[in-house]
Order: sequence, then C-alpha cells, then structure tokens
Amino acid sequence: MIISMRIGASKQDVDHVCERIADFGFRAHRVEGEERTVIGAVGVTGDATNCQESLEACPGVESVVRITTPYKFVSRKSKQSRTVIKVGKTEIGGDRFVTMAGPCSVESEQQILQTAHAVAAAGATVLRGGAYKPRTSPYEFQGMAEEGLRLLAKAREETGLAVITEVMNASEVELVAGYADIMQVGARNMQNFGLLKALGRCSRPVMLKRGLSSTINELLMSGEYIVAHGNPQVMFCERGIRTFETATRNTCDISAVPVLNELTHLPVIVDPSHAAGRRSIVPALARAAMAIGADGIIVEVHPCPEKALSDGAQSLTIEGFNGMMANLARYAANWQEDRGTR
Amino acid sequence: MIISMRIGASKQDVDHVCERIADFGFRAHRVEGEERTVIGAVGVTGDATNCQESLEACPGVESVVRITTPYKFVSRKSKQSRTVIKVGKTEIGGDRFVTMAGPCSVESEQQILQTAHAVAAAGATVLRGGAYKPRTSPYEFQGMAEEGLRLLAKAREETGLAVITEVMNASEVELVAGYADIMQVGARNMQNFGLLKALGRCSRPVMLKRGLSSTINELLMSGEYIVAHGNPQVMFCERGIRTFETATRNTCDISAVPVLNELTHLPVIVDPSHAAGRRSIVPALARAAMAIGADGIIVEVHPCPEKALSDGAQSLTIEGFNGMMANLARYAANWQEDRGTR
Amino acid sequence: MIISMRIGASKQDVDHVCERIADFGFRAHRVEGEERTVIGAVGVTGDATNCQESLEACPGVESVVRITTPYKFVSRKSKQSRTVIKVGKTEIGGDRFVTMAGPCSVESEQQILQTAHAVAAAGATVLRGGAYKPRTSPYEFQGMAEEGLRLLAKAREETGLAVITEVMNASEVELVAGYADIMQVGARNMQNFGLLKALGRCSRPVMLKRGLSSTINELLMSGEYIVAHGNPQVMFCERGIRTFETATRNTCDISAVPVLNELTHLPVIVDPSHAAGRRSIVPALARAAMAIGADGIIVEVHPCPEKALSDGAQSLTIEGFNGMMANLARYAANWQEDRGTR
Amino acid sequence: MIISMRIGASKQDVDHVCERIADFGFRAHRVEGEERTVIGAVGVTGDATNCQESLEACPGVESVVRITTPYKFVSRKSKQSRTVIKVGKTEIGGDRFVTMAGPCSVESEQQILQTAHAVAAAGATVLRGGAYKPRTSPYEFQGMAEEGLRLLAKAREETGLAVITEVMNASEVELVAGYADIMQVGARNMQNFGLLKALGRCSRPVMLKRGLSSTINELLMSGEYIVAHGNPQVMFCERGIRTFETATRNTCDISAVPVLNELTHLPVIVDPSHAAGRRSIVPALARAAMAIGADGIIVEVHPCPEKALSDGAQSLTIEGFNGMMANLARYAANWQEDRGTR
Repeated sequence: MIISMRIGASKQDVDHVCERIADFGFRAHRVEGEERTVIGAVGVTGDATNCQESLEACPGVESVVRITTPYKFVSRKSKQSRTVIKVGKTEIGGDRFVTMAGPCSVESEQQILQTAHAVAAAGATVLRGGAYKPRTSPYEFQGMAEEGLRLLAKAREETGLAVITEVMNASEVELVAGYADIMQVGARNMQNFGLLKALGRCSRPVMLKRGLSSTINELLMSGEYIVAHGNPQVMFCERGIRTFETATRNTCDISAVPVLNELTHLPVIVDPSHAAGRRSIVPALARAAMAIGADGIIVEVHPCPEKALSDGAQSLTIEGFNGMMANLARYAANWQEDRGTR
Repeated sequence: MIISMRIGASKQDVDHVCERIADFGFRAHRVEGEERTVIGAVGVTGDATNCQESLEACPGVESVVRITTPYKFVSRKSKQSRTVIKVGKTEIGGDRFVTMAGPCSVESEQQILQTAHAVAAAGATVLRGGAYKPRTSPYEFQGMAEEGLRLLAKAREETGLAVITEVMNASEVELVAGYADIMQVGARNMQNFGLLKALGRCSRPVMLKRGLSSTINELLMSGEYIVAHGNPQVMFCERGIRTFETATRNTCDISAVPVLNELTHLPVIVDPSHAAGRRSIVPALARAAMAIGADGIIVEVHPCPEKALSDGAQSLTIEGFNGMMANLARYAANWQEDRGTR
Repeated sequence: MIISMRIGASKQDVDHVCERIADFGFRAHRVEGEERTVIGAVGVTGDATNCQESLEACPGVESVVRITTPYKFVSRKSKQSRTVIKVGKTEIGGDRFVTMAGPCSVESEQQILQTAHAVAAAGATVLRGGAYKPRTSPYEFQGMAEEGLRLLAKAREETGLAVITEVMNASEVELVAGYADIMQVGARNMQNFGLLKALGRCSRPVMLKRGLSSTINELLMSGEYIVAHGNPQVMFCERGIRTFETATRNTCDISAVPVLNELTHLPVIVDPSHAAGRRSIVPALARAAMAIGADGIIVEVHPCPEKALSDGAQSLTIEGFNGMMANLARYAANWQEDRGTR
Repeated sequence: MIISMRIGASKQDVDHVCERIADFGFRAHRVEGEERTVIGAVGVTGDATNCQESLEACPGVESVVRITTPYKFVSRKSKQSRTVIKVGKTEIGGDRFVTMAGPCSVESEQQILQTAHAVAAAGATVLRGGAYKPRTSPYEFQGMAEEGLRLLAKAREETGLAVITEVMNASEVELVAGYADIMQVGARNMQNFGLLKALGRCSRPVMLKRGLSSTINELLMSGEYIVAHGNPQVMFCERGIRTFETATRNTCDISAVPVLNELTHLPVIVDPSHAAGRRSIVPALARAAMAIGADGIIVEVHPCPEKALSDGAQSLTIEGFNGMMANLARYAANWQEDRGTR
C-alpha cells in the first residue's frame, strides 16, 4: 500500500499514519520527497482492506493506493491450474467450448421440451431457462416458480442436458439447488451479499453474471464471497455493461474475457443475447466470444420469440440457433489451439 | 404505443402486428407513410408492458416506443397531493427540510450514542447507522447485526431521533422493522425484487436508494414494486451514479431531484456523502441539494472518522457537521419559499 | 416522426403542431387516444432534422421520436453494394482482412523504417504513424510535424506500404494529403466539424475514429459530413469508448462492428491497441475483431516500446506483432466465409 | 511517482527502472516488500509526464501512479489569489454572481436585439449567442457566421452587455476576437489542441466548456494548454457529462464545481441549459449552481423557443428568464457569504 501525504502535511500527521500502519500489521517505509512524503506499507500478513479505509480518513493523507489484489481464492496467483467445473458430461473450463441455450423463461412444458430437444440436437450441452424472473416492472411476468423448476428437470431427463437456472433469494437456494445443475446469479444480484453467502454454503456450481455497472474487480470480489464461504465452483459471465450507447441493449465488454483470464483461474462465459438485445447481432458476438477465448456462451433461444413472455427480441429462433452453431463449429479448431496462449 | 415497421415490411407483417395489438386489449391505428407504416396502439385498459415486449419480437417491426409511463402508483398523475411521511415528530416531504445523520456503521454503544446526541443537538431529526453492511469484500466489516439494531433503538430512546437503517435480505425485514422507523434499501439492492416485495408487506416507511447505474425510470419502477405490494410510504434517495469521472466516488445526479419532483408525488432525499466520497465537498453538495428542492439529506457523521470501520473518508466530523448545519440554516427560508414552485 | 402530446394538451396546441408539421413539408396524421393525442408526420421530402427540433419546443409537446435515419449518403439504404476503398495495392472493405500497423508516433528515420520493414514482412499493408499528435498535456511530445510526414513517405517508398496518418487541423489538410494515402481523424476530433468539412473537399480516403463518448449514430453523422461535402471514401474505426471500467484504457464496443455493418455500406476498422491500453490483450482483441467481421485492424507496433515517446504500454513489440499475425492467419478462411453473412 | 513492480520481476528489471528514473531527472527510492518491490521516483525538476509513459512500458512494471498534478499554471498551488477576469464592467470570479444569457444561435437582428435588451433588463451582464454552430448533422443550421458576430456587436453597443460567442476553428480566432469579449470553446472542441494553442496566443478571455466525457483532470489540462501558450484568462464551464441516464440531455456533474474550486484558482461557470436539455428544470439547476459556489451561469433564452433554429426545447422564454432571475436574487446574500468557504 502506498500512502501519499498532502503537501504541507505535518511531521505529526506522518508519524500518526506510520503508527496506524503498524496497528494493522504492516511495516512503514518513508520516502521523503522535495514536495511531500510518501509512505509504503509493507508486509503480507496485515489487514490491507481495513487499513486502507482507515488511512484514507487520516489527517494529512491525500491518497492511498493498494498494490495487492483484494481477492485471494479467485486469484490466478492462488492456484496453478485452471479450474474445470464438471456438470453431468459437460466440462466448463475444459477442452471444449460450451454452449448453454434455452428460453429466457420457462413458460410451458411444451415450450421447454421443444426447445431442449432442439438445442441438444444442435450441440448445446446445458439448458437455460428461468423459473424465477427478476423483472424491472411488477406488472411483467415473474416466472413459473417451482413448477418451472420441475419442467426443467423433466427436460434434463429427456435430453441429458444439464440445467442452469437463476436463483434470486437466499431463502430459495436450497429449493433451486434441488433441481438445478448450475445456480445462476443475475446481474442485478451480483452484489446481493446475502445470496452470495448462501451460495457459498451450497454444493452446486454457480454462474455469477456481471452487474450492469460493476467493474471486473467487483465481479471478482463477488466471486470471492462465494468461494470464501465454502463453494469453489464459480464461473463468471460477461453479459454487457451499461454505457451511454443505445444502439445495443448493453455494451458487451469483450475485453473482460482476456482480462479475467489473466486475473483468475475460474471459467468465463459470455452472454451475447443480453449484451446485444436483438437477435440479428447475436451470432456475430458469439463468434467474437469464441475467438477471444471465452470458455463458453449462454444464449437465449425460443421456438416462437414473439410469443415469448420475456426477452423475445433478443431470442434466436431454433432455425437461427442451428445456423449459429454450424457457424461456430468452424471455429472450434482455432479455439482449441488458442487455449494455450491464455 | 407507437410501432414503426421496417421499410419493406409486408402487408402480412402489418396485419399481424395489428392482431397482436388487439390481443393485448388495444386498438390499432395505421399511418401509412411513403417509406414505411407506423401503427399506434391506443387504449387505457390494455396490457402495455407485455404488449410492447411481444411486438418488439414480431417480424417486420423496427421499434416500439411506449408513450404512457410504466408505473402507476408512484406517478404524480395518480395522486393530486404530495405524500408526506411521518416518522415520530418528523415529516418527510412536509414543510421542513429534513436532515438524517449518523455513522456509516454502528460500531459501539459509545460511538452511536455520542453521535446521536451530537447530530440531534445540531438539528438532525433522524439517526442513520448501519447494522447490516453490504461490503464489496468479504474481508471487510459486515456490521454488528441485531446488536447494532438494539444500540440504534437505545439511541432513539435517549435522543428522540427517529432511526433509519438498512435491510439487506427479505428474511430480515421483520427483524429490522422491529427496531427501525425507516427501512433503507441500499443502492446495490435497488433491484432485489424479493426484498422489495417483502417491504411492500411491511408497515414501515422505506427509503429506496438509487442503484449505481439505475435510471430514474428504473428507480420509480422499484418504488412501484413496494407500493404495488401494499406499502405506500416510499421515499427515493439520489446518492450518485457511476460514471467515468473518478474525481468523486460517484457523480451526484442533482438533476434527478427536479425530474423526480415532476414525475412522482413521493419525497426525494439526497445523500451527499456517498455521492462525494470525501468530506471536503459534502457541505457544498448539501447546499445544492437544498437549493434544488430536495426534501432532505442523509449524511455520514463520525466522532473519529479515521477509526470508522467503513466510509471514514467521506464522514464529517461532529465539528464539520455542526458547521454544515449552521450554513444550511441560512437557506431554510429560501427553501420554504421555493417549495411551491415544484 | 411521431409527436406525443402531453396529457391535457389543448386542441389549440394540437392544431398548432399540425401547422408546424406542414410548414416543414410533412403531412400530419392525428391519432386520438383516450389519454392523449399522438401525431404522425409523414412524407419523404420534408426537413425532418429542423422540424424535430422545432416541435420539441412547441407548447403541449411531450416527446418527438424520429423514425427515419438522420443520415443519407452513409446509409446502407443509399447504396446497394458495399464500398471498397483502394489505397495502393490494398483494398479496404474488400476480400482480404487489412492490417494497418506501426508506431504511435514517428520518432526518427531509423525507428519508422525499421518498423515499416518489419510490419510489411509480417503481412501488414498499411503503415501507421503520427506526425501530429493530439496529447492531453501540453508538456507531452507533440509530434515531428512535416518532418514526420517526410519519413512516412520515405518508408512507403522503401516498403510499398500505404501510409495512414492523423490530421488535426483543417489548415493542415492539404499538407498532410501531400504525403498520406489515408487521412486519419482522431477520436477527439470526431466532431471537429471544420476539419470534417475540409476533408470533404479532399481527394484522399478518410478513416474516422469514433469519439470517446460518441454514439454510433453520431459517428455516422460525422461520416455524413465528409461525404456530404464531397468525399465518399470514408471508413469508420471503433477504438473503444469511455465507461466506468478502468481495467482497460477504454471499453472496446465490439458490437459496433455488426451494428455498423447493418447501417452503413462503408468499411469498419477496429483499433485494439487504444481499446486495450496494454499490449497483453491486444492479440486476443484483434482475433475478436476479425471473427466479428471487421474489415481490418489498426495496431501499434514499436521496436522498443519503453523508449516510445507515446503509447509504449499498448504497443506490441515486433516479435509480438509477428506472433499475432501468425495467429490471425489461421482465421483468414473463416473470415472470408463469414463475409457473406453481413 | 510510485512504480509497482510485478511479483517476480527480476533484479535486472528493477535496476533498469531505476536507471530510467534517473534518465528523466528523478531519484529512485526502493522499497522491498515481501511480495514485490515498489519504487518511488522523487524530485521536482524531472519530466514526470514523459517518465510515467516510459516506465509503463518497461519490462516487469505493473503500474505507475503519479502523485503530482500534471498541470502547473491552472493549479491553485501556483497562485495564491483567485483569478478575477474583467470583461467590460463585469468581473467573473469576483464578488458578484454572473449571469450570461441569450439565444443558442444568433438568427436575426430583431431576435438578438430583443433578447439582449430583455436579459439586460433582468440582470444579465453578458450576452451569449452563437454565430458559428457545431451541429451533429450537416443538415442542421450552421450559424450566421460573421454576420452573426456583427449583430452581437450591435447588441453590445445598444445594451452595454459583454459578448460571449463560440469559436470553432483556429483559423477563425482572430476574426471572432474582433467582435467577442469572451471566446467560448464548445464541449466537442475541448481537446481540439490546435484551437487551444491559437487561443493561447489571443488576448481575449476564454471560457472552456467541459467535453461530454472529459474528466475534470482533462478539463484542467486543456486549460493548461491555453495558459501555457500565453493566455492566463481562462474560465471553466460545467455543462453536463454523458452518462447512461436519458431523463436529461446530459448529467450535470454539479460536484465538479467544488472539486474545481479546490484544484484551480480560475473561475467556474455552470450551463444549466445544456445539462438539462429541457427548460422546466433549468431554474432549479441554476439555483443549485449558485448554492454550490459557481461563479456564474450561462443560460439559453429565446423570445420564441419553438421558432429557434437550435436548442429550442431547453431555451427559457423571456418570461421564464425573468422569473428565474427574481428567484436567484434571493440567494445572492447567501452566495456572497459562502464565498469565503471555498
């Protein structure tokens, strides 16, 4: 940690900061410049998180810059090998690019089974579908709840697909885990810390979607919550961030994929559907996700998008999904070869 | 609702859209332009929310623009008079500018009582203090939990201040409501819909903080959740949004105050502490909040900011708070006179 | 154009709006809803741009939504075939993915010649290098000016590479055009309208970089300036936009590529160097640009990045560039096959 | 400057960085931590700007944090007293809050004279009006050019108001300076460095508007360009930044006022019209600007906003302006008293 004192900070201020540094378990090194004093706080056993916050409030301090990362378990430094998460026959973070596909919401038995068979036939290995839906408006369809979970389980039985579905509340973790293979945390819940802690005590893998305006660092910290509370099976999902641009629903921060690959050993998934917000550019974004080195994608598919109870505009038709999968297949060899360069 | 068809959309596409409009309870009016057809969906009893989503996914549709607001209860159109929320002797949304003040976190009995007495003496009428703390890192102080709530209640007894404190999980609403006068929803939970629904069934007033990257429309929709589920006592809080600027912790969207005053009958509070992120500019921001017509402010105050377990850098000292309150008092007459112009 | 009147707007307000619509050369169609009146302005010969602005200021008007695009020449609707821009032996927008490479700034004869030979050998066909540098600080290196242009011309002679270089001022267009094959407009000048007009009167192709916070629509409008003033040879460049994320220098809005491909017939280039801000993720971003369907990339390369007078951190070494080009070559067949799907 | 080396950087890397630090005129201080080495570069005579850029590209370097500000002349540290800019009888940065008002564009003699007389009568002391207009579309009104300047000069003669007007190109600085009292740089030109340099050689005061997505630091750097090139009479203008929020045209970063007051001795103006984008909230924003400590405001006023050739929706009517000025007058005593606290 590097503490820059203000110009004109008193010797008393500097001494005080050095004492506080010691209080938190670090050693202080002073560097006296012509204009101001800069202090380095050195040591690996100190409590950097709380020390930083305290120093920022000390008299005479201009800024505190932390050098070490604030996360441990999710850091690539903490684990030599990349994490591979097994779900049924699928490995996420392994040697094959993974496609998760399905409707935004589970709407009926007929809808989810038809979609499941279609996406499985086209090469998807994980079925997505929401039973609990976070909706901006209280007047929008809120999901089929447990009945939706039962239909997802039925689709799994029929197709062999693993199931990913969203959990919105800590109190529902156990229920959802009874049906799902992967627990999804939605963008709006990325910093719902009660939910993260509950998922830390759950034995299912978790896919954590990046919040609309969350930094990559905050995404990693939310992953850290889950791992620190006991569950090491976490994957991250880039699904577009909120910016000034309105030509797309969100702005796909595609660079987040290589940045995360540098910082963490955990798998990274891209959601081109929510990033784009309209189906016409979803296949192109999926190609980019594959080329840049994501471990997989999660895509919305609906047998009849205009009848969808949510996200119809960004859902691929089954025909569109088939076309996209055929296109992506041509990139598989390149993807595998580029893996090593991460 | 106005539906613009693509250039070259077929007559069949247009007919189909008109049928769907009728399905959702509206009447369709076609306007045939030289280049394209535009369709108006007219009526007050239709289901606009779900109709819009469906039309966006129909073949041949370029865009759907909704004219009516998607919220009802929180809209100024739904209620002639402005809502005044009574909490103990304090009226929020009434004829006096309200100051809520206190530490970020409750840390000890001595700390909360000292602060409570000090802010009450300076003119605050509501005590803030977190017992459950949403923290980016799992390694940061997470709050004193119920013990913190008990200390807040003790401070209320001693000082007569009303108490506002944050609730993070739907499962804790009842517990927190047993101690708090106002239930605070933090920025990261603004779209935690399970929590919002639980607060709709609660009898305490709720202060809903705007999410870091939430639009004003989304803030109103989250308020609508609470009211639609049964609790009409909602106030909104502008606390700064996330932008590219790093000179302040967040960017205080001060214009949100008059915009909300145009759109809703509910009170609007400004949090200059989180917006600024450092104490030196908090008093100036508080003045701006008052001048622009907010109903009140919520401010962080700590007897010794550098020992604060959270948000020390942006907490005012008690001396600083006293100075700010003396300054604001000079604006009270102008504030009251400007009320009528909202 | 669709004009929504406020609830309670008077018949006089509505009549007045209809008159104004006629003044600007459109026909007005009224749609009377239960709550409010909506008016469609129909016609292809009216002056939509100025009409919209006037209507927004009329009494009783709530909002005006424009349906037609505000640009003409750059629109894909205006031209059936995609534009191919020829520069020496290189075709931009044609059947081969184009790589433009070179240092941020021209610094010396030795530096630019060494780089030019190296990038040509690796497969680049256009040499980049700034002679006039827009720098945030007046104390940073401002470029070699005309001497830099001469060195670029010399490098072209020696290598056969075409030259792209930035022009910052309208008064320098003629001078720069005397040396450059492609005139580059930097992000900070995307809305320097005097410069755009001067480039409209220039016979050289222009590469227009997207502004840090410019929408895709504004980028197209700036291209429209150049074409409307006489120069049809325009290409667009996505180079990252400014967002809250600081893990990268900018946020590469990779979706802009397919969005632009839908909206315009002009070529689209991606600049992974400025988007990333650090060299480690440039090759991955370049792959994504290729996979998503860009016409080419523009990349910073320096023989010794740490001695670079600008942008060293994001410049590839020559070795790094060679590796990236070998990697991209494996994507060429896929790129060509995917062309047709734009 | 503080350089953090990567974990595992070699001794050779560290030595090399120390040599580079010396090359740029600084002394290097090493702090050896358990995990990594951190190096402080100390001294006041070194070339920090270029040193930072070079170090960021050195092998083994993780990050470089600059402690000193990159600007000198505009810094509050460089000048004890606040700068007061005199324009005719008006002092900007002095003891009176300054109001600049007038139409977006000069459109006719009748329009500008009528407006000038009206705003002067209401208490404005500077007349605004654009003769050269930066417009997103080439099909929008581009201004009356020199004829507009002549009309502004005529309005000055008749009313005694000083004149502020925009200059868009370096080649027009001399011409505009022949008519204007204050040279305005628009938001889109804030980093048009050729224009800034030309204004540095001009004897007129300059009002520099903040770019749509420019940081406060960049705004100060652009001011530094003007002062470093010879013109010390610079004032800054906050006019709203671009964010995700669309309820207002831009987001008024009101906190920029106290932040600038801490960092620079130069005056700060707020433009509530462009920040808001619609007239209904302009007066409230103007009050906030005054309360927070701005030196003045610049406001759009038009005798008939719906006939305005630009920005009609955000222009106040003359009646509206009169009302706003009467309202602001009640804040004058508070404003003067709060001056001292900057």
